[in-house]
Amino acid sequence: MRRKLRMGMVGGGQGAFIGAVHRMAATLDGLVELVCGALSSDPERSRASGAELHIAEERSYGSWEEMLDGEARIPLGERMDFVTIVTPNHLHYPVASRALEQGFAVVCDKPMTFDLDQARRLARQVEESGALFALTHNYTGYPMIKEARARIRRGELGTLRKVVVEYPQGWLASPLEESDQKQASWRTDPERAGASCCMGDIGTHAENLTEYVTGLEIEALCADLSTFVPGRKLDDDGNVLLRFRGGARGVLHASQISIDEENALSLRVYGQKGGLEWRQEEPNTLILKHADRPREIVRTGANYGHLSPEASFATRLPAGHPEGFVEAFANLYRNFALCLGARLEGGEPPPEARDFPTVDDGVRGMLFIDTVVRSSRASEKWTSMA
Amino acid sequence: MRRKLRMGMVGGGQGAFIGAVHRMAATLDGLVELVCGALSSDPERSRASGAELHIAEERSYGSWEEMLDGEARIPLGERMDFVTIVTPNHLHYPVASRALEQGFAVVCDKPMTFDLDQARRLARQVEESGALFALTHNYTGYPMIKEARARIRRGELGTLRKVVVEYPQGWLASPLEESDQKQASWRTDPERAGASCCMGDIGTHAENLTEYVTGLEIEALCADLSTFVPGRKLDDDGNVLLRFRGGARGVLHASQISIDEENALSLRVYGQKGGLEWRQEEPNTLILKHADRPREIVRTGANYGHLSPEASFATRLPAGHPEGFVEAFANLYRNFALCLGARLEGGEPPPEARDFPTVDDGVRGMLFIDTVVRSSRASEKWTSMA
Amino acid sequence: MRRKLRMGMVGGGQGAFIGAVHRMAATLDGLVELVCGALSSDPERSRASGAELHIAEERSYGSWEEMLDGEARIPLGERMDFVTIVTPNHLHYPVASRALEQGFAVVCDKPMTFDLDQARRLARQVEESGALFALTHNYTGYPMIKEARARIRRGELGTLRKVVVEYPQGWLASPLEESDQKQASWRTDPERAGASCCMGDIGTHAENLTEYVTGLEIEALCADLSTFVPGRKLDDDGNVLLRFRGGARGVLHASQISIDEENALSLRVYGQKGGLEWRQEEPNTLILKHADRPREIVRTGANYGHLSPEASFATRLPAGHPEGFVEAFANLYRNFALCLGARLEGGEPPPEARDFPTVDDGVRGMLFIDTVVRSSRASEKWTSMA
Amino acid sequence: MRRKLRMGMVGGGQGAFIGAVHRMAATLDGLVELVCGALSSDPERSRASGAELHIAEERSYGSWEEMLDGEARIPLGERMDFVTIVTPNHLHYPVASRALEQGFAVVCDKPMTFDLDQARRLARQVEESGALFALTHNYTGYPMIKEARARIRRGELGTLRKVVVEYPQGWLASPLEESDQKQASWRTDPERAGASCCMGDIGTHAENLTEYVTGLEIEALCADLSTFVPGRKLDDDGNVLLRFRGGARGVLHASQISIDEENALSLRVYGQKGGLEWRQEEPNTLILKHADRPREIVRTGANYGHLSPEASFATRLPAGHPEGFVEAFANLYRNFALCLGARLEGGEPPPEARDFPTVDDGVRGMLFIDTVVRSSRASEKWTSMA
Repeated sequence: MRRKLRMGMVGGGQGAFIGAVHRMAATLDGLVELVCGALSSDPERSRASGAELHIAEERSYGSWEEMLDGEARIPLGERMDFVTIVTPNHLHYPVASRALEQGFAVVCDKPMTFDLDQARRLARQVEESGALFALTHNYTGYPMIKEARARIRRGELGTLRKVVVEYPQGWLASPLEESDQKQASWRTDPERAGASCCMGDIGTHAENLTEYVTGLEIEALCADLSTFVPGRKLDDDGNVLLRFRGGARGVLHASQISIDEENALSLRVYGQKGGLEWRQEEPNTLILKHADRPREIVRTGANYGHLSPEASFATRLPAGHPEGFVEAFANLYRNFALCLGARLEGGEPPPEARDFPTVDDGVRGMLFIDTVVRSSRASEKWTSMA
Repeated sequence: MRRKLRMGMVGGGQGAFIGAVHRMAATLDGLVELVCGALSSDPERSRASGAELHIAEERSYGSWEEMLDGEARIPLGERMDFVTIVTPNHLHYPVASRALEQGFAVVCDKPMTFDLDQARRLARQVEESGALFALTHNYTGYPMIKEARARIRRGELGTLRKVVVEYPQGWLASPLEESDQKQASWRTDPERAGASCCMGDIGTHAENLTEYVTGLEIEALCADLSTFVPGRKLDDDGNVLLRFRGGARGVLHASQISIDEENALSLRVYGQKGGLEWRQEEPNTLILKHADRPREIVRTGANYGHLSPEASFATRLPAGHPEGFVEAFANLYRNFALCLGARLEGGEPPPEARDFPTVDDGVRGMLFIDTVVRSSRASEKWTSMA
Repeated sequence: MRRKLRMGMVGGGQGAFIGAVHRMAATLDGLVELVCGALSSDPERSRASGAELHIAEERSYGSWEEMLDGEARIPLGERMDFVTIVTPNHLHYPVASRALEQGFAVVCDKPMTFDLDQARRLARQVEESGALFALTHNYTGYPMIKEARARIRRGELGTLRKVVVEYPQGWLASPLEESDQKQASWRTDPERAGASCCMGDIGTHAENLTEYVTGLEIEALCADLSTFVPGRKLDDDGNVLLRFRGGARGVLHASQISIDEENALSLRVYGQKGGLEWRQEEPNTLILKHADRPREIVRTGANYGHLSPEASFATRLPAGHPEGFVEAFANLYRNFALCLGARLEGGEPPPEARDFPTVDDGVRGMLFIDTVVRSSRASEKWTSMA
Repeated sequence: MRRKLRMGMVGGGQGAFIGAVHRMAATLDGLVELVCGALSSDPERSRASGAELHIAEERSYGSWEEMLDGEARIPLGERMDFVTIVTPNHLHYPVASRALEQGFAVVCDKPMTFDLDQARRLARQVEESGALFALTHNYTGYPMIKEARARIRRGELGTLRKVVVEYPQGWLASPLEESDQKQASWRTDPERAGASCCMGDIGTHAENLTEYVTGLEIEALCADLSTFVPGRKLDDDGNVLLRFRGGARGVLHASQISIDEENALSLRVYGQKGGLEWRQEEPNTLILKHADRPREIVRTGANYGHLSPEASFATRLPAGHPEGFVEAFANLYRNFALCLGARLEGGEPPPEARDFPTVDDGVRGMLFIDTVVRSSRASEKWTSMA
């Protein structure tokens, strides 16, 4: 690309966690620079955060509305190219919708919106505007996830039969929201998080990863959500039976009360001919399971010539040089930036770059949340996810 | 004990798998000797198998009825002390029931009977006879399982919240029963296996292990059983949501079609104060999870003075000298033999020896099978396990 | 075999560790029975130990001399067939030598003798007597070790280049011998253990495993032995550079002061075409390393048809049913018993049974100890092992 | 800091590997920007590489001499603040020396120079100039390495006794330098790499990591270097016995011919009271070994309040969000940048930032290379490293 793309950020000021990740991820490959921000809902903190990040004072805005309006007034070619939304969930829709109206491309954190209705409206708006929209289901950015997907697409596992996807965490095993821990406070608050805490925050990652890797679509599910910490208003644990279109079945369970589990997202898929396994905490390893020969350990960056183009494209380092969470996250930004850059400069992105979660993934995610919450309250076994 | 206990065996002849395991397990500690057998339903094969095992010709019987009658005629103190039943499931009840009638103690493979009704009748008979009865849920014999149980009983995890128990295997991913593989053939046959294949064979181990370790009782469940291999008459995979009396929840899944999974029984338990994890394929490790300090790796035989008496009693070797499947299995036999020996010789067994699965575990197991099969066909979400 | 072989045992009474292992290992497969013993150098303890083990009173001897003489007087076909020696090292030679003189086959614990001279004399005696002699380098009994050896023999790794063999333990990190711990007391005593503690006890296992698996012979070495615990008279740690005949090189290190290491024997071998790795604490896994495709995980008992006959013959259970230390140890006894039985009964053992460590392994082991001790004191770099 | 620091880069153009890593690492935290470069020894490729990286055309130089001269002519406050040297080894010294002469701070890849003499001259120059100089022994940037170091410094392991450090790789198992693979070509070339390939490239990392974590100093060593690939001029494998000042002993082995090993640097340290273990390919885990309680698994980002300030300062993400090679590398740049920024702006850096490898580490590294090469040729056992 002839120049770096210009990013504006809403949210992610001092005290936030994910904002810093987005900044590292966006700029890692030298394709994007942060040019403006409305980093906090508190105008003073917003400006202080901007100064720390070397954002020009006049582009460190006091509110997201100011930022969108202000940037829209800057001449094309100077203004920000896209906005990244890293606020609590309830603000995703208003910011994204307004940004689209003003012609900006959007990167939005997940879950995409506060509720399913917003998600569907946003999808229509994206479609009508023709704008580029990326949703940061970052776990799909790992090279070995792309390798898993490529192998399933090539038919190496045969017809899929069973999926086990889990996402145990332990950080909310005690009532952390009663302290002033910012993450805990908004994620357990139905006014800001939406209808679910555990399933909304991490269950959706599990759902998205499953559908991305397997190409299967959840058809119906049976959920049992729990709130173990007294006084908490939203679920902090959930177990779900899955039925996929085409006959495969599965289990999804997620938890925020599984003490000392850190971020133990994992996926196992079994088909008629083979299986595979991936664990987020050791992300550079993909285990292949065969019916008739020993298990194989595929590794990020290995040069035995067996890796898919998709995995190779998502890899920056030779094997044994661990790539982690930031690099996977950066793969989403890189692909998004390559597509946006090509659009702005009139070229074509590399085919592997046309691979990042979109507004449709966002709708699926919100539908998943909606369905598990309804299922958990239902007395019949199966609730359709449609 | 003043002498070795005398064991007779029904089933377990040439071509069988589990019979040899029972023999190694029973005799490992020098407490038991094999003195008679009806090792096959084919009288000729039965005698040939007996000869291979150095069973005296006159005590190598042509049928189990002959054996029970024949041994009953031998003077007390010379006859077998107990019978071990390692046949396909449909024969467990008739053999056990007749053995009890004739005053023999019984060790029986799991699942205990063909159906729940038989299980309840057998339980009554055991109670009325006062005989010793052991069921070989062998996975409860592992030292680290006993350690896990002891820690939960001592309250180290606090109130339990969540259980994840899994038992994936892959050996029935193709229609192996169409070959003459003996194990596959009877386990997939409703006439010999009972109402379930996967849940009966391994799901019950998962259920038993869970209740043994946690002390919790499954109250209700929601099951989704599948048969993936065309033509197969029983389930070869199943996913189950669990609700325990007292409020804990969980997931149990088992599979025989998860390609290249060997015997991957595992258990994770999370409470208010901590968690633990155990995996059968690395059985000498127990992982302890804490809210406020690093994860700990407890090991069989370690001499840091933290192991429970129950775990130590179940351990034969110093740490780092792997004890395996046979040793765990032998722990059941040793405890059973110590209790039976004490009864025969008039003493008291060590307190740790009063710990082996009984007919009540067998009834729970059959109730579990019955409930998952009913739940899988039900349209309501929860089926009570009572 | 028409009957079980009769074993006598010297050493291994109450308070011993390895004696019980030998008994479990010898009898696991129903090929051997313990018929007599001189289980302790203390006649009273010897008899009490014998009674516990159900040895007939008249064959529970007060000393090993009595036992050898006593058994020799029993008619052929009734007397013991072989003697197992599980005493401290300094007694191996006198017992073995006398047993050979009286025509008994011998199983002897390692290191074979007190010093190299004894080892060479014993080797001559074995050769001249034509007797069967087995040395319990038990780690060579693991199925995956036999698999490793078979693959190297078949040339799968190409010309070997590098070996890394380690054996860290931590049990002697403090002066345990000052307590009355029996194992620590004799192993650190030059009068009973010989010239080395760490290298004699476990370094020899590492040496033997290396030569067994690779087929290579150590040509010269450079050793640095240490004694870290004050007051200890023998080495408790050692690091050794290895040069093999033919050009391969390697490192061997062993330790008894590596805190919290249990029994972490491991072996890595690299050749021109591939490599492999095995770890004793997870003995059922063999890792294969390839230049041009993903790493493979070979597992004991796996039925993908790729396992060598040697590994299969050494396996009792299906994959995922962990076989451990006792089973590996039992493989030595089984092979020895099959060979001895064939000799007694006039047949041929299965070809895979002709595989157990012999008196020649014992001489190599004693030569290794002698060489590392000399090298450690030398100022020149290389000391020839010849 | 009031502004980003300005970095110039020598080397690292198209086709290079480590240059891109340095750029990602330097800019990850938003403290540094790349402003100029002499990215290749070929002026045309240098400019093309610069354009790709959005370096202003006039600051994309045709040679490193041009760059140093050119930047020196730019007014203070506009010119680059420091130069990063990522060329083959033989150019490190001339570039660094000239840069220091012209008053630039320097970041230099390792090994620091072509030979020991250059290293000592450079150290004197750095001392005399008072300039900031960082050497990218990047593995010391991992949080768990800093944790290990902090715990040893606090005395948790007691007096250290034994160190095992290994660095196996397999990428040079075949004569890759005969192809046009750039990395292989210069690293095996004595004209560009110096006196050693394997020990120079990765052995020095092992040496540096060991001394950094343990605080011990290698006093003498005994090395056996090998060249396994025919025609290769430098070592591709080496095994080394270590003696540390104060009495600890150890083993260091490194390899480039250990097939299918990726980048398996690992470190184990044992003291009188405990031990620890770290493996670069799973860098976020530190294993603590205790004499009297279970092994503990310490994890990057864990919030159980036990992590040292040094480890916390080096951590960007919550536990379970894997940080990798780039993040560890970035920790060196961040610390260097914070120190340089403080110096330029007149403040004090955070105490944890005063922690990056310096010219003294570089001299130790070159002395290590020099000593292992001499030792490998020597006939006496020990060669002093002084």
